[in-house]
Amino acid sequence: MPRIPFEELKAEFKRVLINKGCDEISADLSAQLMTETSCDGVYSHGVNRFPRVIEYIEKGYIDLKAKPTKNAGMGAFERWDGNLGLGNVNAKLSMDRAVELAKEFGIGCVALGNTNHWLRGGSYGWQAADAGCIGICWTNTQPNMPAWGAKDRRIGNNPFIMSIPRKDGHVVVDIAMAQFSYGQMEASAMRNEMMPVPGGYDEQGNVSYDPKEIAKTWRVLPIGYWKGSSMSIVMDLIAAVLSGGRSTYRVGQLGSDEYRLSQMFIAMDATRIAGEDYLASAINEVIENIQGSERVAPNQPVLYPGQKELAIRNDNLANGIPVDDAIWDKIRSL
Amino acid sequence: MPRIPFEELKAEFKRVLINKGCDEISADLSAQLMTETSCDGVYSHGVNRFPRVIEYIEKGYIDLKAKPTKNAGMGAFERWDGNLGLGNVNAKLSMDRAVELAKEFGIGCVALGNTNHWLRGGSYGWQAADAGCIGICWTNTQPNMPAWGAKDRRIGNNPFIMSIPRKDGHVVVDIAMAQFSYGQMEASAMRNEMMPVPGGYDEQGNVSYDPKEIAKTWRVLPIGYWKGSSMSIVMDLIAAVLSGGRSTYRVGQLGSDEYRLSQMFIAMDATRIAGEDYLASAINEVIENIQGSERVAPNQPVLYPGQKELAIRNDNLANGIPVDDAIWDKIRSL
Repeated sequence: MPRIPFEELKAEFKRVLINKGCDEISADLSAQLMTETSCDGVYSHGVNRFPRVIEYIEKGYIDLKAKPTKNAGMGAFERWDGNLGLGNVNAKLSMDRAVELAKEFGIGCVALGNTNHWLRGGSYGWQAADAGCIGICWTNTQPNMPAWGAKDRRIGNNPFIMSIPRKDGHVVVDIAMAQFSYGQMEASAMRNEMMPVPGGYDEQGNVSYDPKEIAKTWRVLPIGYWKGSSMSIVMDLIAAVLSGGRSTYRVGQLGSDEYRLSQMFIAMDATRIAGEDYLASAINEVIENIQGSERVAPNQPVLYPGQKELAIRNDNLANGIPVDDAIWDKIRSL
Repeated sequence: MPRIPFEELKAEFKRVLINKGCDEISADLSAQLMTETSCDGVYSHGVNRFPRVIEYIEKGYIDLKAKPTKNAGMGAFERWDGNLGLGNVNAKLSMDRAVELAKEFGIGCVALGNTNHWLRGGSYGWQAADAGCIGICWTNTQPNMPAWGAKDRRIGNNPFIMSIPRKDGHVVVDIAMAQFSYGQMEASAMRNEMMPVPGGYDEQGNVSYDPKEIAKTWRVLPIGYWKGSSMSIVMDLIAAVLSGGRSTYRVGQLGSDEYRLSQMFIAMDATRIAGEDYLASAINEVIENIQGSERVAPNQPVLYPGQKELAIRNDNLANGIPVDDAIWDKIRSL
């Protein structure tokens, strides 16, 4: 698999976006975010997803000319309309605005409706932390997971992100409410592998590790069973009602493609509230304590959230970002 | 098991608290919250926990004379010190203040340090929703769960609450980061029952449904395995650094009793932002859609988060709150 330098991959994303009619500033921002996502090892939401972004531009779901507009505001809270612009650009601008509000009010919040898939949710957590802020954000999705006790998929595998700034590497949790994404299960099925923990139910209604059996029902497991199901429902409701945008239910009414999503961005000015020195020392002693845990497997260090991404980032910055041949050919042909 | 009328149970809690030196207003508030918790069916964090509250008062961990004090504020964010007052009173006053800030700024946040166990976290979600607000809150705990990849317990089974107001019954998620609490597993062990889903690891390092085997290691499972572990870590960091209070690591340094906790309270004025009618219709269509799911078990309805608590509440208000004989005798003797 070729390893493409960061700037070369970014330039390719940017070239294609401009080709499709995107302005230079938005193309640069979107390309930067997709390259960072790939560089951090989240290939599924970076380079491997790019052809889908182009497909959605061509289908008219993504409007490259659109910019987000502010619909309403009250102090530290604002409601924005994404106007179906590029999902990662809309999300980046929304977290930027939440951070601005946090610098003014301590905490700031943007609810964004009518937007597109934000690709990697973690991006906006890293972004808030880069600005010295705690970031909390989430998005809804199309209906792709059954509620607890249900067989058919009426709730979303909604990602949830929390981050806190740290000089030696931010602490960032970026999780979705299903134990595994469809993409992860399809990739394991292609390799004839079982999932490391149960991922869903087979046709007999038994919990299964086998992605091929789970694919027959798509009854995927929420994290914590009933707990992840509940979180997904309330995250969706909050994002939809505060943004005035669509709930997972209404996204599902649009058909099998996933667009017109609702998202939440919250920032808190941790650096100003806690002070830079206290922030660093308070976080580091917790991280060091956790890293010093007694290990289950002696060769497997106990990691803090975000540690793995940072290690992959440093490797990929030094050695290039691994890109599947077929995907790389496809992108260069666009 | 006797079923005690709401007002009788509340009066008994209040009598004992006043006996121990609590002022009438705080005693009334604390008793109200504990009775509501029991009335909603969360007996473990209401009536069954009351003897522990009294024990902690006697040990000097809970200071019945203390009131929370504001340490710092910037607009929509405030930092408060709980001064080791009654945990549920401190938490209630903190969410009250977050709601006041939300009414002014759209969103409001209180970080509370140096406080005590808040008993049922869901209380403060229901409270925010009663005020027409979305509520998000969490607390840290003593170290009682291993981080992912670790054997020894260095992170907390931190509860996380999200709520949204709804006229026909608020939607409230109240979950902790471990799949089961110690109390739930101990209760199942006493009944010689297995847990309904895996709850932790046995001494051979295998995932187990058996609470007696799990009790030999106390390697309890986080929800979503590595996901719940990550969430627990970041929730703890946020609460500790924003409140200036103790992290789970530092709570653990106090010994085996659990006090001096750190908590977060966020409110958003959903009613004003979304408008009462839109809020109601947008939420109800989602709830109705989820309740209309194809059921796994035909006799088991698919519930929205908070639905079960409301049903138990209505039953207990009509028929009295079930209280274990031994606990009831104990409380009346205090």
